[in-house]
Amino acid sequence: MIDETHDPARRSWVESANRPGCDFPIQNLPLGVFTPPGSATARIGVAIGEAILDVSDWLPGDQLNAYMALSSADRADFRRHCVRRLEAGAKPCALYSQTECRLHRPVTIGDYTDFYASIDHATNVGKLFRPENPLLPNYKHVPIAYHGRASSIVVSGTPVKRPQGQLGEGRFGPTQELDYEVEVGFFVGPGNALGEPIAIAKARSHIAGVCLVNDWSARDIQRWEYQPLGPFLAKNFATSISPWVVTAEALAPFWTEPPPHDVPILPYLREPVPGALDLTVEVWFRTAAMTEPIRLSHAAFKDMYWTAGQMIAHHTVNGCPLQPGDLIASGTVSGPQPDNRGCLLELTAKGAEPLRLPTGETRTFLHDGDEVILTGYCERPGWVRIGLGHCRGTIRPQ
Amino acid sequence: MIDETHDPARRSWVESANRPGCDFPIQNLPLGVFTPPGSATARIGVAIGEAILDVSDWLPGDQLNAYMALSSADRADFRRHCVRRLEAGAKPCALYSQTECRLHRPVTIGDYTDFYASIDHATNVGKLFRPENPLLPNYKHVPIAYHGRASSIVVSGTPVKRPQGQLGEGRFGPTQELDYEVEVGFFVGPGNALGEPIAIAKARSHIAGVCLVNDWSARDIQRWEYQPLGPFLAKNFATSISPWVVTAEALAPFWTEPPPHDVPILPYLREPVPGALDLTVEVWFRTAAMTEPIRLSHAAFKDMYWTAGQMIAHHTVNGCPLQPGDLIASGTVSGPQPDNRGCLLELTAKGAEPLRLPTGETRTFLHDGDEVILTGYCERPGWVRIGLGHCRGTIRPQ
Repeated sequence: MIDETHDPARRSWVESANRPGCDFPIQNLPLGVFTPPGSATARIGVAIGEAILDVSDWLPGDQLNAYMALSSADRADFRRHCVRRLEAGAKPCALYSQTECRLHRPVTIGDYTDFYASIDHATNVGKLFRPENPLLPNYKHVPIAYHGRASSIVVSGTPVKRPQGQLGEGRFGPTQELDYEVEVGFFVGPGNALGEPIAIAKARSHIAGVCLVNDWSARDIQRWEYQPLGPFLAKNFATSISPWVVTAEALAPFWTEPPPHDVPILPYLREPVPGALDLTVEVWFRTAAMTEPIRLSHAAFKDMYWTAGQMIAHHTVNGCPLQPGDLIASGTVSGPQPDNRGCLLELTAKGAEPLRLPTGETRTFLHDGDEVILTGYCERPGWVRIGLGHCRGTIRPQ
Repeated sequence: MIDETHDPARRSWVESANRPGCDFPIQNLPLGVFTPPGSATARIGVAIGEAILDVSDWLPGDQLNAYMALSSADRADFRRHCVRRLEAGAKPCALYSQTECRLHRPVTIGDYTDFYASIDHATNVGKLFRPENPLLPNYKHVPIAYHGRASSIVVSGTPVKRPQGQLGEGRFGPTQELDYEVEVGFFVGPGNALGEPIAIAKARSHIAGVCLVNDWSARDIQRWEYQPLGPFLAKNFATSISPWVVTAEALAPFWTEPPPHDVPILPYLREPVPGALDLTVEVWFRTAAMTEPIRLSHAAFKDMYWTAGQMIAHHTVNGCPLQPGDLIASGTVSGPQPDNRGCLLELTAKGAEPLRLPTGETRTFLHDGDEVILTGYCERPGWVRIGLGHCRGTIRPQ
């Protein structure tokens, strides 16, 4: 629901929050978990500009799960409280500098599900393996997903050690085809009991917030292991998430119509509200030899074939319980153009067309020392830009 | 390690524990979580014969995760303590009757992984779909597994609601092909940190205990959704586990040589100790019209192609962290003979050969009101039988 907290004219007494292009203006107010300098105690904070407001008086503990279990009305109350403390004219209080604090994984993730909701990604990947028949027959009818590993979800900035494993018959060693995937993650709010599906009309109310997700993938391991039960060790060595959870409330002005489908969908997936999120994701990349990162791709999240609401309705239609803080990722966000491709597998056509970098280096897959930086933001005329911050990871040798 | 706690001559002052065929003699001492009659507080107990010893003085809390985080030396200490309290000659104390207590899911399961370790199951299922080429090329080299859903793991006795979902293109409704799968589950002990594999020589020490697992499956949903990322809604509506965790210590006399492989395996999977567990699993079945259950199948768990140690070494070889209380299931336990088939898909050849029951009823897949009961036990000459108890579930209508 759009309310006075989205007023684009509102400014904060925190000057860095008022600068154009800032990810965290007073209309955003994402939540995270941080440790201040010199402290050993992690606590919950709200990002404002380049600072952090300690909100442990309102939200005790060191994970956001209790926040996510709140009703949307209670989450909105908390948002209004933060606006009152941070808006221009309120009495300034002590803040922490983001760069001086340590940021943590903000949520205890019970279960992690990864969808495959970009039809462009599914088509691009399918073309590489089945040129005549890129899209499988089920794709347009059933939201495809698999369960990922919760224990290896790490916060942005955590180094990613190149995994070793079986690369083919009798072949063992560090992966030679290490890749990233840019995704958007949804944190589950109240959730549902075993056996009680969430109807599509209620699905949106079970999203508490969003983050950026890097679904690191080892393509050689994946190719060898994935039949018939799907990816396993190719994915579960690490998944990075951005530290700031942008709330469902902050996203309210950015929902829009998803692209039309050319086949009928079943009633349980027909969403009564515009279900796509007008969010751009970008992938930036830096080798150890580069001083500045370059942008590899950008894509419109609103063009995904399945919406977040459809993912939740589908996930629970069989009675599967979602719990507060569960993470549902979208799958690689790609689009129709070459510079919309959200992983190296697509960008380099399985390694056949190496990237040429400004340093003269080339890449088919990731080298040790390479850094991948994901960003994302919502922008629409008439509303203040809402940023998702960054999700970073640098590859370390095996 | 076999020690004096395995002495087959030792008896308990709890008479029901000394009866031949008892699942829970003093050599077993499995742990569980129970609520006594009239109490609202769940606590940890040890099963002895038909009774429960409250051990909340030694193990506080209402889940076994802290127990599983113990070293094997500390777990062995606890076992000796229980033997001293329960052996013949010790001073009798108050016990609870198992039938009067409510049993709970004993562990908070962070992540749940399901393997596919029976080559007979993989071959039987493969034959139904690819008669000329039943076993995929990777099967004999790489232990195949996928991540399951932790939030829908329920304790034995919890009714299983028939899930609804997409049964094919444009087809929606309650599954018409509801199946069970008999599996053995391993609970992870201390586990490993991100990026630090568990070597095969140490793998066994990371098993804290075992249970029975029923991996309920909706075959029509599975067929339609599983390409290319594996099973999802076909499995995540419910997974049942037996309530008593049989400890690694109790199993010590029952490790044996696994069957030989006819292809070389990579060094990280070569186990230096006999890695197979000499455990029989059985599936019993009762329709609403039957007064007594009948046995549908039995299989030798020691004939699985991959051992539990191999599963743990493989799971972590890429650095994936296992945490205390994580559940690793074996996949369907089947064997080479028709009465070794551990699911209806195999027993009825995808429904083509219905089961004929003593009541004159037939079954291809499960009907509402049907009950599936899994049992398992270790028996070897010279040692006392160690039972895993039961894992029950009855199908409720959608």
